[in-house]
Amino acid sequence: MKHFINGKDTAVTNAVDGVIGSSGGLLTRLDGFPHIKVVVRNDWDKSKVALVSGGGSGHEPAHAGFVGRGMLTAAVCGDVFASPSLDAVLAGILAVTGEAGCLLIVKNYTGDRLNFGLAAERARAFGLKVNMVFVDDDAALPHLPQQRGLAGALFVHKIVGAMAEAGESLESLTSAAQRVISSTSTIGMSLDTCTMPGSPKDGRIAVGHAELGLGIHGEPGVEQVVYNNAREAMAMVIDKLGAVISDAPHVVLLNNLGGTTDLEMSVLANELLNSKISSQLKYIIGPASLMTSLDMRGFSVSLLPAKDSDISALRSNSSPSAWPGIKEVKKVKYLPLPDGLKPVLPLPTKHPERREFIEKCCNIFIACEADLNALDAKSGDGDTGSTLATASRALIGSLDRLPLADITQLYRAIGLELSQTMGGSSGILLAIFFAAAGDASASGKSNVGALNAGLDRVQEIGAAQLGDRTMIDALRPALDALPENMLAAAIAARLGANFTSTIVHAKAGRATYVSADKLRGYNDPGAEAVAQLFEQLS
Amino acid sequence: MKHFINGKDTAVTNAVDGVIGSSGGLLTRLDGFPHIKVVVRNDWDKSKVALVSGGGSGHEPAHAGFVGRGMLTAAVCGDVFASPSLDAVLAGILAVTGEAGCLLIVKNYTGDRLNFGLAAERARAFGLKVNMVFVDDDAALPHLPQQRGLAGALFVHKIVGAMAEAGESLESLTSAAQRVISSTSTIGMSLDTCTMPGSPKDGRIAVGHAELGLGIHGEPGVEQVVYNNAREAMAMVIDKLGAVISDAPHVVLLNNLGGTTDLEMSVLANELLNSKISSQLKYIIGPASLMTSLDMRGFSVSLLPAKDSDISALRSNSSPSAWPGIKEVKKVKYLPLPDGLKPVLPLPTKHPERREFIEKCCNIFIACEADLNALDAKSGDGDTGSTLATASRALIGSLDRLPLADITQLYRAIGLELSQTMGGSSGILLAIFFAAAGDASASGKSNVGALNAGLDRVQEIGAAQLGDRTMIDALRPALDALPENMLAAAIAARLGANFTSTIVHAKAGRATYVSADKLRGYNDPGAEAVAQLFEQLS
Repeated sequence: MKHFINGKDTAVTNAVDGVIGSSGGLLTRLDGFPHIKVVVRNDWDKSKVALVSGGGSGHEPAHAGFVGRGMLTAAVCGDVFASPSLDAVLAGILAVTGEAGCLLIVKNYTGDRLNFGLAAERARAFGLKVNMVFVDDDAALPHLPQQRGLAGALFVHKIVGAMAEAGESLESLTSAAQRVISSTSTIGMSLDTCTMPGSPKDGRIAVGHAELGLGIHGEPGVEQVVYNNAREAMAMVIDKLGAVISDAPHVVLLNNLGGTTDLEMSVLANELLNSKISSQLKYIIGPASLMTSLDMRGFSVSLLPAKDSDISALRSNSSPSAWPGIKEVKKVKYLPLPDGLKPVLPLPTKHPERREFIEKCCNIFIACEADLNALDAKSGDGDTGSTLATASRALIGSLDRLPLADITQLYRAIGLELSQTMGGSSGILLAIFFAAAGDASASGKSNVGALNAGLDRVQEIGAAQLGDRTMIDALRPALDALPENMLAAAIAARLGANFTSTIVHAKAGRATYVSADKLRGYNDPGAEAVAQLFEQLS
Repeated sequence: MKHFINGKDTAVTNAVDGVIGSSGGLLTRLDGFPHIKVVVRNDWDKSKVALVSGGGSGHEPAHAGFVGRGMLTAAVCGDVFASPSLDAVLAGILAVTGEAGCLLIVKNYTGDRLNFGLAAERARAFGLKVNMVFVDDDAALPHLPQQRGLAGALFVHKIVGAMAEAGESLESLTSAAQRVISSTSTIGMSLDTCTMPGSPKDGRIAVGHAELGLGIHGEPGVEQVVYNNAREAMAMVIDKLGAVISDAPHVVLLNNLGGTTDLEMSVLANELLNSKISSQLKYIIGPASLMTSLDMRGFSVSLLPAKDSDISALRSNSSPSAWPGIKEVKKVKYLPLPDGLKPVLPLPTKHPERREFIEKCCNIFIACEADLNALDAKSGDGDTGSTLATASRALIGSLDRLPLADITQLYRAIGLELSQTMGGSSGILLAIFFAAAGDASASGKSNVGALNAGLDRVQEIGAAQLGDRTMIDALRPALDALPENMLAAAIAARLGANFTSTIVHAKAGRATYVSADKLRGYNDPGAEAVAQLFEQLS
């Protein structure tokens, strides 16, 4: 597995510098690379309680991405999945702690407990007030005395972060953090393992299976389960969580473990909001990548009872852009489809000359069906003649219901007919041609002017210019000559069509994929059709 | 490859509902599922110009994630990598367009051009003012007449979105969009292909290679290049972009193509900000997932000249939480490491009785080295005796430099010595024990009170309770009895140590991994060491 890093030993230091560099001056770090990797708010004056978190890397955006006003004061980053050292944690504490003290928010892993714990002792020996809380929100192994710390840490960062920003005391922050931790439950699930930079992938999750009750360090889940679809997957997670939560309204945090696409996360959000605990879900955070496990193709769901003061804190303004905000879960009211999707055909009217003219044009196309197919077969799939002839036959069949007497309505109606009877890009382009001609006619353009406006729009939408080897190469010169007379138009169309046989690098349409030697000497079938039309009409 | 979906045919509709459900009431949709998938702002009154974008799905959060105040009015979602239908686009336009008109922002792909183009014609036939722009920011194929639309579309959404919110006219929005499009350049690179739900993965990118000049629909890149590391990868992308951009200050958008971890994206951000065009990069958007290609393990870089009015628009407030904001690129000033990381040892002082007591304790541990190792070998790796003896010898050797006359300083100094000479968790835990005892002593606690405070802290950090089968089971009762006399303490320690032989389900420390039958009948070696100490001392 390849990774966008420069080496295992520089992955975290480079990433920390990337986070700082793209923070807009919000963040900086201690000058202790590579051993001491501590990201610090740049706008910190030690006047309030400092919040320090961290732990092993590989959980991005946690924790460096949550440093900033209203959340963490500093994040101490270890190597991937490894606790930071005592020295690094101590450096972080000493750098940001003033008289108000410091709260360490530590995920419940032995290495983190020990290193943060001893660092706290050292800092206390300097006379600093340092408290520590352990986040242990994992609900997968309720019988174990020690639960892991998972994405529920985000509740703590944000709620206590808002309180710290408001100037509350270390004691009050500590008890709030402990209250939040003890009422948070998280369950994770994954379809695949994560990939440590520089290590091979552990393929332990079999086809058709998923792991339930997952940590965030690539360790196996509590159980392997059969995976069928997103709905059943979410139901299994909710079953585990439902066993531990109360009936109260909750805020739910839907976390991407790193490798799940945004499309899938939204599908999972939909399943979550329609799950059997949906009536208890009053607020949602995410779906978002908050506490990841490198590229793990999984998700976790965290629940916290929706206490008013906590909701205010979760809603409060903060600067880290990795925080996705909290949203109220509201009943969705869909909008009715607008009128006008089923076009109302205007009433048919009579106009014998126009009817005759349209029939004449259509019969010209029908007559040259075989020739055009043969020509198209030289450079394409040989169906230009049939496509035009089929549409022409259908148009003749529709003449009785067309508003022949009103030229504006007629253009639009022909466009509509063609879009329904003629397949592929050419059908849509001819529909656009006649619809735009109708618009131009409505705004007072002459016939030729309207047709030119139609062609303008086809060029715009089809992204084709004169000389790109399309029917435009015949139609544009023909329309330019048409005010003179039909003969001039026919001559111009023929010259244009024949010119396409010299264009060997097509720039629009399917012929762009055809090599020069296959195109040389053959007219573009669309341009040839136009030339035939004008020649026969003249 | 497994995906968190319920089936190919419901992936996009489920995801759209998930986006709406987690939008906090910001979004809704037209009631046209499954054919018409149009996400709409819920707070829209048609008083301003509507901005409609969309296209195939699989690019999340684009485009539904960017619907909201200050960005898009509606997003028309096709199936994965497939243009939405004419009807869907027309429904979107008709649903949101008022007298001010509508601007369609369309990525430059034939299917999108045609369907949005014909829908625009149909809408115009209703008398609506509809303009359309095509985003073609791809700089990978500069010689081709048609460039693809990539992540540069986000510049358009945000800049024109801010202008629309400010009430500017359709004409002014259209020309601003065209200006932004024509001055935006994007290049993508990927280490792997993306995975279509329900389809096998295309393994065309060989080991050690990457694709450069990438689209967002899984099509092959313009060239395969050798991939060595993030630095060279970013340099290749910058080389392509450097060829097309001016010397002016730019805003850069760093986009995750979907499957790159946040850790890697930050490494890439660091390389970008230190690349050869770094002096031209005045603002950065991201790194973030903005215009993805499902789970593609790649990134793209988009550049736009930093025009003042555009920067204001990019900075303006908007509601979609998928927009990551724009940050000024500032010079980072690192903070110096704080004082106190290298602990200053207090001056040595003399205290013959304490010196003799410490030597006695240490010699007790040294004497029972072999016995404790043998006991540990029953349930562990047989090194408890050696670990304690080694630390004891080192402590005896350090007596000349210890502040023996000051009990508070002495506790802390012993903690420091042990953390440096004793490895593993036990070294850190004993260091915490003595450091916390020092703190308690400093705050006026008696000797026994200080030791109890030390043990309290060890229990907290080590997450161990009485009865978990650790040395606490001997030390706690001994300390409780110590105020009586040393003999009582020794008896209590022995009882406690012997009791550990009956605890067969350890709840802390390494013995948690050892089966009950290996533990039954053997004292915990740490508890036994404590008992031996107190017995010898009494």
